[in-house]
Amino acid sequence: MTPKTGILLSRIKSPEDLRNLDEAQLPQLCEELRNFIIDVMSVNPGHLGASLGAVEIAVALHYAFNTPEDKLVWDVGHQAYAHKILTKRKDLFHTNRTYKGISGFPKMCESEYDAFGVGHSSTSISAALGMAVAAQLEGIKDRQHIAVIGDGSMTGGMAMEAMNNGGVSRSNLLVILNDNGISIDRSVGALKDYLTDIATSRTYNRLKNFVWKALGKLTANIGPNHQRIAQQIENAIKGSILRRSNLFESYGFRYFGPVDGHDVKRLAHLFKDLQRIPGPKLLHVVTKKGKGLKLAEKDQTKYHAPGTFDRKTGEIIKDNCPGKKPPKYQTVFGKTIIELAEQNDKIIGITPAMPTGCSLNLMMEKMPERVFDVGIAEQHAVTFSAGLATQGMLPFCNIYSTFMQRAYDQVVHDVALQKLNVVFCLDRGGLVGEDGATHHGAFDLAYFRSVPDMIVSAPMNEQELRNLMYTAQSEPLGAFSIRYPRGRGVMPDWKLPMEKLEIGKGRKIRSGKDITIISIGHVGNFVTEAAQKLSTENIEVAHYDMRFLKPIDKILLHDVFKTHQKIITIEDGTIIGGLGSAVLEFMSDHNYKAEVKRLGIPDKFIEQGSLSELHKECGFDAEGIILSVKSML
Amino acid sequence: MTPKTGILLSRIKSPEDLRNLDEAQLPQLCEELRNFIIDVMSVNPGHLGASLGAVEIAVALHYAFNTPEDKLVWDVGHQAYAHKILTKRKDLFHTNRTYKGISGFPKMCESEYDAFGVGHSSTSISAALGMAVAAQLEGIKDRQHIAVIGDGSMTGGMAMEAMNNGGVSRSNLLVILNDNGISIDRSVGALKDYLTDIATSRTYNRLKNFVWKALGKLTANIGPNHQRIAQQIENAIKGSILRRSNLFESYGFRYFGPVDGHDVKRLAHLFKDLQRIPGPKLLHVVTKKGKGLKLAEKDQTKYHAPGTFDRKTGEIIKDNCPGKKPPKYQTVFGKTIIELAEQNDKIIGITPAMPTGCSLNLMMEKMPERVFDVGIAEQHAVTFSAGLATQGMLPFCNIYSTFMQRAYDQVVHDVALQKLNVVFCLDRGGLVGEDGATHHGAFDLAYFRSVPDMIVSAPMNEQELRNLMYTAQSEPLGAFSIRYPRGRGVMPDWKLPMEKLEIGKGRKIRSGKDITIISIGHVGNFVTEAAQKLSTENIEVAHYDMRFLKPIDKILLHDVFKTHQKIITIEDGTIIGGLGSAVLEFMSDHNYKAEVKRLGIPDKFIEQGSLSELHKECGFDAEGIILSVKSML
Repeated sequence: MTPKTGILLSRIKSPEDLRNLDEAQLPQLCEELRNFIIDVMSVNPGHLGASLGAVEIAVALHYAFNTPEDKLVWDVGHQAYAHKILTKRKDLFHTNRTYKGISGFPKMCESEYDAFGVGHSSTSISAALGMAVAAQLEGIKDRQHIAVIGDGSMTGGMAMEAMNNGGVSRSNLLVILNDNGISIDRSVGALKDYLTDIATSRTYNRLKNFVWKALGKLTANIGPNHQRIAQQIENAIKGSILRRSNLFESYGFRYFGPVDGHDVKRLAHLFKDLQRIPGPKLLHVVTKKGKGLKLAEKDQTKYHAPGTFDRKTGEIIKDNCPGKKPPKYQTVFGKTIIELAEQNDKIIGITPAMPTGCSLNLMMEKMPERVFDVGIAEQHAVTFSAGLATQGMLPFCNIYSTFMQRAYDQVVHDVALQKLNVVFCLDRGGLVGEDGATHHGAFDLAYFRSVPDMIVSAPMNEQELRNLMYTAQSEPLGAFSIRYPRGRGVMPDWKLPMEKLEIGKGRKIRSGKDITIISIGHVGNFVTEAAQKLSTENIEVAHYDMRFLKPIDKILLHDVFKTHQKIITIEDGTIIGGLGSAVLEFMSDHNYKAEVKRLGIPDKFIEQGSLSELHKECGFDAEGIILSVKSML
Repeated sequence: MTPKTGILLSRIKSPEDLRNLDEAQLPQLCEELRNFIIDVMSVNPGHLGASLGAVEIAVALHYAFNTPEDKLVWDVGHQAYAHKILTKRKDLFHTNRTYKGISGFPKMCESEYDAFGVGHSSTSISAALGMAVAAQLEGIKDRQHIAVIGDGSMTGGMAMEAMNNGGVSRSNLLVILNDNGISIDRSVGALKDYLTDIATSRTYNRLKNFVWKALGKLTANIGPNHQRIAQQIENAIKGSILRRSNLFESYGFRYFGPVDGHDVKRLAHLFKDLQRIPGPKLLHVVTKKGKGLKLAEKDQTKYHAPGTFDRKTGEIIKDNCPGKKPPKYQTVFGKTIIELAEQNDKIIGITPAMPTGCSLNLMMEKMPERVFDVGIAEQHAVTFSAGLATQGMLPFCNIYSTFMQRAYDQVVHDVALQKLNVVFCLDRGGLVGEDGATHHGAFDLAYFRSVPDMIVSAPMNEQELRNLMYTAQSEPLGAFSIRYPRGRGVMPDWKLPMEKLEIGKGRKIRSGKDITIISIGHVGNFVTEAAQKLSTENIEVAHYDMRFLKPIDKILLHDVFKTHQKIITIEDGTIIGGLGSAVLEFMSDHNYKAEVKRLGIPDKFIEQGSLSELHKECGFDAEGIILSVKSML
């Protein structure tokens, strides 16, 4: 499709063109941009809500600042579609998030206007500060460095680490706090309350009004001499207390705001004014997620990334394929944890700001007191779980695989080392598709396998996920990781009775004399498909589903190595350090000799695309497996 | 040795005994405790300074709270010696930090009074909050949960994540901010300025005085009616602005303090009072690190962990062994980076609060504008480095291996993925000795090997460290990790000219027909020793030092596998996923068949001890290598 561009937008190729517009034209441009985004997103899904909310910020930034000379870092980056469109990528925008298309996130190698690649939350202030300090060291005085960060991202620990460091620098650093009160789900925590309090001016205005009223009474009664004293008091309050009364001022940032983030002209003015104020500063901008699309404004979580929708009504297009589909893995997790929690009152659900993404919202509705959304705070989520576990609770801490990289230390140091019983449910394990390189869960199998005493598992299907979850809560088992992929499973009738699995016990799926395939996780289904096809060519494949990467099933592996000379391992994770390596270590430790081929995510960063495109690229879809089998025979 | 205990301390076995003391006796007990700690530490080194500073806090806590029923979490934990002595470990305290002795940190399996095991910074609030929430869920109302955290640790991102989460809970959570203005080196960042500002009461007192003075003038002139108004104004200021004017109040914690942390009676009173105030609260306590030992108060960094010292004078006992010793690796790093930075003006030094520990303090003295201590903030340190790198700077980001676990995601997502040139110098790679299980750098070789495009290296000696550092800055090479161990090297004359190494090129150290040993890092020296001894028994060992784990030297490995059938790999890191696994992967990928034995840190957590005791325990000291060689022949 070729989306329609409005009359102003059609003339804008780059921010330079934008800067030639008259200020009065900016609101119209914003409307055109919004329409353009809605047009494209309605047929090529993406992160709609956040980007609609940040249109004015993006326009005003490129209007007021001299990009790309001035450095602009978007936190997370899924709010930056207007930025992408304004910076020479309008004609490519319909390829957003597709295979070989443009990335859904800012990306340095894609554009000089993307000062820093993003995807994971809370990195922008650190990166912008680094740039600002570099400019200082180079003696560049007039370059501006801007981090645009949401109120949710601001709760991430590293944002606060950066504030602490940035507050003492003298560098040109502007933090724009894009406060929409929501990340994907509603923002949580004290910071949110605090921001709401500022934004609605309860504290400030109440006091200011009170003091003025009181002083007013005095001055009315007393005359000019006391008016001077009253003024002094007010100045003292402003200069001394207010100076430090703001959270961000405590960190050494000058605080400005809150301002309406949809008033593009005012934003542009402010951005120009702020360039004249040296040192670190923070502008608090209040926006509405989904702005401009009524239904999206109303149900912001649903419209965070709504899929395709009706351009006119905004209605999300329901899947109208007939027939019963397998559920999403996250749904199986979300419903199963309720079943388990109803039986086991020690089970607690923990999520760092992803209740809807991981389906813990279901449990939240049923037993709100037993689910904790701790904010974008993976490190805290894990150690908070550890604290709960010391008191006999059994936390199920659900973190996307890619974000678990943030809490590796806490898993090692606070959970595994102390043999505390915490179940880690890693959603989005393996390739995740359209979110691309920043979001693939490629490393968890490898980095958890190194952790002593940890149980590392991955189910092949919905029933296995349920069995693993059931097993994980059946007795104290220490740190227990269950990773499963993004998207749908393979079992339309998934709600089967659960059974306890033996820890470290794999299962034989299929016998075969020609070659053995050892899989872990959902890719076992690709093996099943491949084995069936190969069987029609009279190639007989044996297939084992390990279920557990650690402890690994030694009896099973002895069996395999005693009887087979050709082995393929397959996993939806890096081939460095995961299942394949574990099998090789076993083979070496027990002095077996066999030909082993490892399939998995190759040792490179994989870009975005559909899951099937990426599985194919990595060579572990059914077709890839067939090729590998044939090449070994 | 049997340290002398004072008259009160000798009667105290557990906190219960302490609680039987009269309040008036507490100061004397503190003095006795301090003497006891100094006695023991003077001959058995440990973390002296922090523990001397927290004696009164420990005494007052156990006096006022009902431990172990009330839960007490020490952040980091090296300030908790008085706590250990008071909680049934007085008679074991002389074994502190020694092999098979008690740990230098609180540890759950060691004592019921250690509510949470610690070591890494900034975990205490998360853990205590978890415990507090568990109590809430169990309906336990009167249990108290206390986190004692230093001002340095408070800058760690996860502490702020926990504050954000804790501030909205209604749980019994008391955070004691132990503010001594220093972690190991002087604390840095905006938070420190802020705390100093509060502690010296500049803001509060100045304003309060001003308002009172001004209001005083009014009321003096105007009479009782206006006095009422003046009072109203003051109440409004207190109730409305001051309520929110504090950083911690912004997070929803009630703030109390600052108070003198060496006034044990006042602390005990406060702790009792605070138990009656529900919800999350923070008490700001000001202490002096090294309190009670004059020299330690004066040079707090030196006396953080001073080694043995003269009990009477406090003078640190100089090493009086004659002869020239090899330098510490950290010194080689610290001096070499200056040499390089003098030639290459793009080099910047970054440390998260460890300038003295990693010897970046040397560069800090010489070129202060080019070294950044970013506070206890590993995540920020890495992404800040990435930001600098986008502008052409070449950051050498020095983080202890064990703490790098905190920034794994940032290395993957912000540096490697973007192919930014950042050199990671990982000090304390491998076993670290007396700090024990929480601090061993066991995993970095494995977790970095999985990262695409990363260069992962480890020098065998001082000269190799210099060569690797030289190489890393010689051209743009992306993410480049150099890991080296704690302690001394092997080359008394280490300051040799540097040369550029070929990336991914190992070296042959020794030829031998009987067996081949492939090593990475300093353990190569154990191999040298073993090979010499074996040679006297006519066993000829070939030895290769890989230098690079990634990219691995394929030519070298082809050579090895073509000519040898018996191979030992050895690394000071986990045997799961590191060098050994890399060699097995290579062997499998190229269809070689050989007998391979992997030496390294076994798949379990290793406790504390001297380096040589631990190397022996793990079986990769020279003796262990000899045994392995013989068992294979």
